[in-house]
Amino acid sequence: MVSRPGPILVINPNSNPAVTEGLSHALDPLRLSGAPEIETMTLAEGPFGIESQIDSDAVVLPLVSVVRARSDVSALVIACYSDPGLEACRAAASVPVFGMQESGILTALSRGDQVGVIALSTASIARHRRYLRRMGVSERIAGEYALDMSVDESARGAHVAEALATAGAALLSGGADVLVLGCAGMAAHRRALQERLGVPVVEPVQAAVAMALGSVLGD
Amino acid sequence: MVSRPGPILVINPNSNPAVTEGLSHALDPLRLSGAPEIETMTLAEGPFGIESQIDSDAVVLPLVSVVRARSDVSALVIACYSDPGLEACRAAASVPVFGMQESGILTALSRGDQVGVIALSTASIARHRRYLRRMGVSERIAGEYALDMSVDESARGAHVAEALATAGAALLSGGADVLVLGCAGMAAHRRALQERLGVPVVEPVQAAVAMALGSVLGD
Amino acid sequence: MVSRPGPILVINPNSNPAVTEGLSHALDPLRLSGAPEIETMTLAEGPFGIESQIDSDAVVLPLVSVVRARSDVSALVIACYSDPGLEACRAAASVPVFGMQESGILTALSRGDQVGVIALSTASIARHRRYLRRMGVSERIAGEYALDMSVDESARGAHVAEALATAGAALLSGGADVLVLGCAGMAAHRRALQERLGVPVVEPVQAAVAMALGSVLGD
Amino acid sequence: MVSRPGPILVINPNSNPAVTEGLSHALDPLRLSGAPEIETMTLAEGPFGIESQIDSDAVVLPLVSVVRARSDVSALVIACYSDPGLEACRAAASVPVFGMQESGILTALSRGDQVGVIALSTASIARHRRYLRRMGVSERIAGEYALDMSVDESARGAHVAEALATAGAALLSGGADVLVLGCAGMAAHRRALQERLGVPVVEPVQAAVAMALGSVLGD
Amino acid sequence: MVSRPGPILVINPNSNPAVTEGLSHALDPLRLSGAPEIETMTLAEGPFGIESQIDSDAVVLPLVSVVRARSDVSALVIACYSDPGLEACRAAASVPVFGMQESGILTALSRGDQVGVIALSTASIARHRRYLRRMGVSERIAGEYALDMSVDESARGAHVAEALATAGAALLSGGADVLVLGCAGMAAHRRALQERLGVPVVEPVQAAVAMALGSVLGD
Amino acid sequence: MVSRPGPILVINPNSNPAVTEGLSHALDPLRLSGAPEIETMTLAEGPFGIESQIDSDAVVLPLVSVVRARSDVSALVIACYSDPGLEACRAAASVPVFGMQESGILTALSRGDQVGVIALSTASIARHRRYLRRMGVSERIAGEYALDMSVDESARGAHVAEALATAGAALLSGGADVLVLGCAGMAAHRRALQERLGVPVVEPVQAAVAMALGSVLGD
Repeated sequence: MVSRPGPILVINPNSNPAVTEGLSHALDPLRLSGAPEIETMTLAEGPFGIESQIDSDAVVLPLVSVVRARSDVSALVIACYSDPGLEACRAAASVPVFGMQESGILTALSRGDQVGVIALSTASIARHRRYLRRMGVSERIAGEYALDMSVDESARGAHVAEALATAGAALLSGGADVLVLGCAGMAAHRRALQERLGVPVVEPVQAAVAMALGSVLGD
Repeated sequence: MVSRPGPILVINPNSNPAVTEGLSHALDPLRLSGAPEIETMTLAEGPFGIESQIDSDAVVLPLVSVVRARSDVSALVIACYSDPGLEACRAAASVPVFGMQESGILTALSRGDQVGVIALSTASIARHRRYLRRMGVSERIAGEYALDMSVDESARGAHVAEALATAGAALLSGGADVLVLGCAGMAAHRRALQERLGVPVVEPVQAAVAMALGSVLGD
Repeated sequence: MVSRPGPILVINPNSNPAVTEGLSHALDPLRLSGAPEIETMTLAEGPFGIESQIDSDAVVLPLVSVVRARSDVSALVIACYSDPGLEACRAAASVPVFGMQESGILTALSRGDQVGVIALSTASIARHRRYLRRMGVSERIAGEYALDMSVDESARGAHVAEALATAGAALLSGGADVLVLGCAGMAAHRRALQERLGVPVVEPVQAAVAMALGSVLGD
Repeated sequence: MVSRPGPILVINPNSNPAVTEGLSHALDPLRLSGAPEIETMTLAEGPFGIESQIDSDAVVLPLVSVVRARSDVSALVIACYSDPGLEACRAAASVPVFGMQESGILTALSRGDQVGVIALSTASIARHRRYLRRMGVSERIAGEYALDMSVDESARGAHVAEALATAGAALLSGGADVLVLGCAGMAAHRRALQERLGVPVVEPVQAAVAMALGSVLGD
Repeated sequence: MVSRPGPILVINPNSNPAVTEGLSHALDPLRLSGAPEIETMTLAEGPFGIESQIDSDAVVLPLVSVVRARSDVSALVIACYSDPGLEACRAAASVPVFGMQESGILTALSRGDQVGVIALSTASIARHRRYLRRMGVSERIAGEYALDMSVDESARGAHVAEALATAGAALLSGGADVLVLGCAGMAAHRRALQERLGVPVVEPVQAAVAMALGSVLGD
Repeated sequence: MVSRPGPILVINPNSNPAVTEGLSHALDPLRLSGAPEIETMTLAEGPFGIESQIDSDAVVLPLVSVVRARSDVSALVIACYSDPGLEACRAAASVPVFGMQESGILTALSRGDQVGVIALSTASIARHRRYLRRMGVSERIAGEYALDMSVDESARGAHVAEALATAGAALLSGGADVLVLGCAGMAAHRRALQERLGVPVVEPVQAAVAMALGSVLGD
């Protein structure tokens, strides 16, 4: 590999630039000289927040279009916890594609035995349960706890830190020993939550980008 | 994080410096300016190759001693596919500890659906099977295939490439769509094997160090 | 229930009218006086055959549009073995929605212990494996065997009967005691295959419509 | 199949005619012109209610005798939630045999993700747990909740509706999103309970007969 | 416990006295002074060999009658690999009841990781698979291999030793590292088979009686 | 086997003789004339109590040394609930080796459907969970409840009986129908606890020795 590998493209499939900005900020520590650039983008065609099954399915084709248009990248990350279009993007891409939920859970499995997930909404918990069963890792999941907020609220609301702490504490008392933030909007709260609760807290976009870096650099 | 984080210490628990050298070389692409140093060491007290359950158990206390002595590190990687002493080192350390088998398998789960593992020996396959069951990911394992070589042979033998290709092909025809190299000694063969077989081949020490980098940088 | 319930709408998400005709014919025995009408339709927006992950994801929004437009129906059946859009249609509908794969597998579980699936293509087997894991029924699956045909070929090809018999026999020798036809196009071959092999052969669109009838009539 | 298929025989293995009457009434909507007759019978040799393991085992041979005597039927349904003699009747019959628990659970799996079962008695819950494990679907079961009533009481008691609502609400708060009535005696309460709780409620004898209809008509 | 505990009653549920004699002989080493007597009996009402689901179900009530009549025993063992009536006998007894399959498998799980079972007939393998799933131990089963003999033949045939060796070797090459003899009739061949194949071979009636002894003596 | 088999050696891997004495006393009922002697020993190199992962790993090599030195035994039992060194001792021994946790759980699976374990400490519960997953029997585990005592305290404390009853009752109300004492120190309390709670209580050293007796006598 003589030339520098292309960027790792992190696509926020909702159209809320505040979420993209937040996650880009969370990725700053992974931007290293000598390593691939980490580029973030907002999916113009996405809804303002992906908060339902239909929202999630609606972004699959736009995501595939981005994947097809960007043959310059060395890896892709889909930065929505529903992992919309993950399999379709993998089929369309010639480079590795990482999903935020998948990477976040796999990374958590290296940091604890029983994973607790802080979900955005009660409705999303059923979607996640099916996804975790599909992943074949249900035995390692302690449970999920919903904030019942919108994506935008989770990214900007003043009371988010408190709500995350309540959710995290409930998951720990249910047996979790590692937590995953179940929405890209929560990224800014990771470190404070980890310090407050004393267990590892995984920010899944960071986890996905770290896995992407490993796959590109090691290749 | 004002000061630079300490190094990521990668411990080869066998006493064969050729294996340490090989894996250090495999980690070169993950050595980045701005990121933690990646330091490798050979465990003086280790056997020349960890090739049995007793070999694996024998290095646990020496590993714990290293962990206790090195409070300067920001993360630890145990670079033997048996993940000897992983839980003991986690209990002894105040930083994240990554096992090679655990990280290799978790990383493979982000690159394919059914994982095939190229094991050093038939005897190790039973150990791995118990370990994978303990991880709770057996549904995602296509199988293992043994080279029946010593660690040293796998790191230096002339015919290793051919043996790996035979093993890999057998695993693919058994349903695997991603491969894991089941010994640190095989690291140098990763890229060639991946190109030859056309599926992702995960080198688990690289995978563990990438996860360690993610945990340190994101923290 | 004073008024007659609305029709059960069976949507073929590909745009091949020969497939719709074939499955409508297969549903004739389930058209009963006193029971809901069974209406079939071809999805104009669908590809000629759903033969990839992207094909499958591409029909989700058009299916949701149909669901939203047809508030007169009493139940819906998605007649493609990939069950495209099943969760999205369920979210959009106020009546029960049945998927062909889900219903076919569940019905097969009442006819035998180990299910063998005759898949259209090798590529689809990986998709089905993930789906079956998501369903949580993997312990009851003997395996899948691919014909490696197009949807259209499976619906009309002269040599389909022979290929199905070969596939079925391979699945039986691998432990299956009940078979499922893994594409709506194969419907016409069910009875002959069952008689030839001597085990139950489930046609999944029939299975889905029978479940739909049960849910509507019993309601 | 030129001649009309034989009846679907629904056998109530207890000797309480009030239960048979209740379930026959619940099956009225599935009696369609052009479809097989749905015949119900009370097993004279059965106990007044099947309320223990021994009650359940005691009816196996009498059920097998009925099966052997009725070569005119096109399918059989065993209408007791313990599915007594299901495997023995399958071995004795040349037509499909459906069990009430098996069919009820499989049908529920098409209507929700996590199944809650309203059981007659605490003692029966352990039996059901073993049965569900045998079915290989435990990952999809939210739990069971016992009424602690006799079969007869569940079929006729004035306070049954209230007890069912309490049980159902407890199951929903434990994560269930679809309910199954765990005794043939409860059939008359299905619709009211479904309307009250707002989730699908499956009456398993209806479910078994719908599956039987599908197998006979589609054959 | 001032008085000597009652005998451990081992019931052969078939009516073939040669099988009872063979298993009584196999139990001689477990007859110890100071320990409970080990009494064997042949179930007069049993078929000559339990070779089908109906055979197995037919002995349940006769077994329950024996259990009820023998209040003097300290434990019971049902000596047929199908474990007929195990739950019914447990419900009827006030002392521990052990099944031959259950005890044989549990004991094998302490002697190896992957259990291979030598079954009497192909038909019985499906029954065993359901039973093992019900036990929740399927992950530890390598497979079953059928002799396709009658019970009587397995107890007396001249060529049984050779057939067992063939079956055992097939199971070992399929991954088993411990074997279970899947019929009480095969008891006399245990030691020779173990010596020939070099892996532990569990005779399940011995295993059940050893568990019974442990429960009685330790009580 | 004309000569009497060698003793069954039960090794207490901690160095607390009070624990060895207590378990030796619990084994008295299994000392039978005609059966192998049951010899207990205290591991001089062990810690005073095995109460952490490192304690458990630290005794592996000393245990292997004992195993290698004692070629006269007919079976070995490791009498610490963590089963330290079980696989290493099996690799070193030419006779069967039984672990206390493994044997206790397997024995409990023959006495009830859902096992509850009374653990010494909260920290040990995570270790046990991984071990039970490795065993592949998690579906049969109701849960664990910690006393949060030292090994020594559990063997001698005055209030142990009361604490065990509280723990046992909590496990029963969580669905357990059989209990396992999760530390060799608790042996003396087995019978009283069983009588108080009315469900079988398994003392795992007894269970392991009973399995050892079965394997030696039956051999």
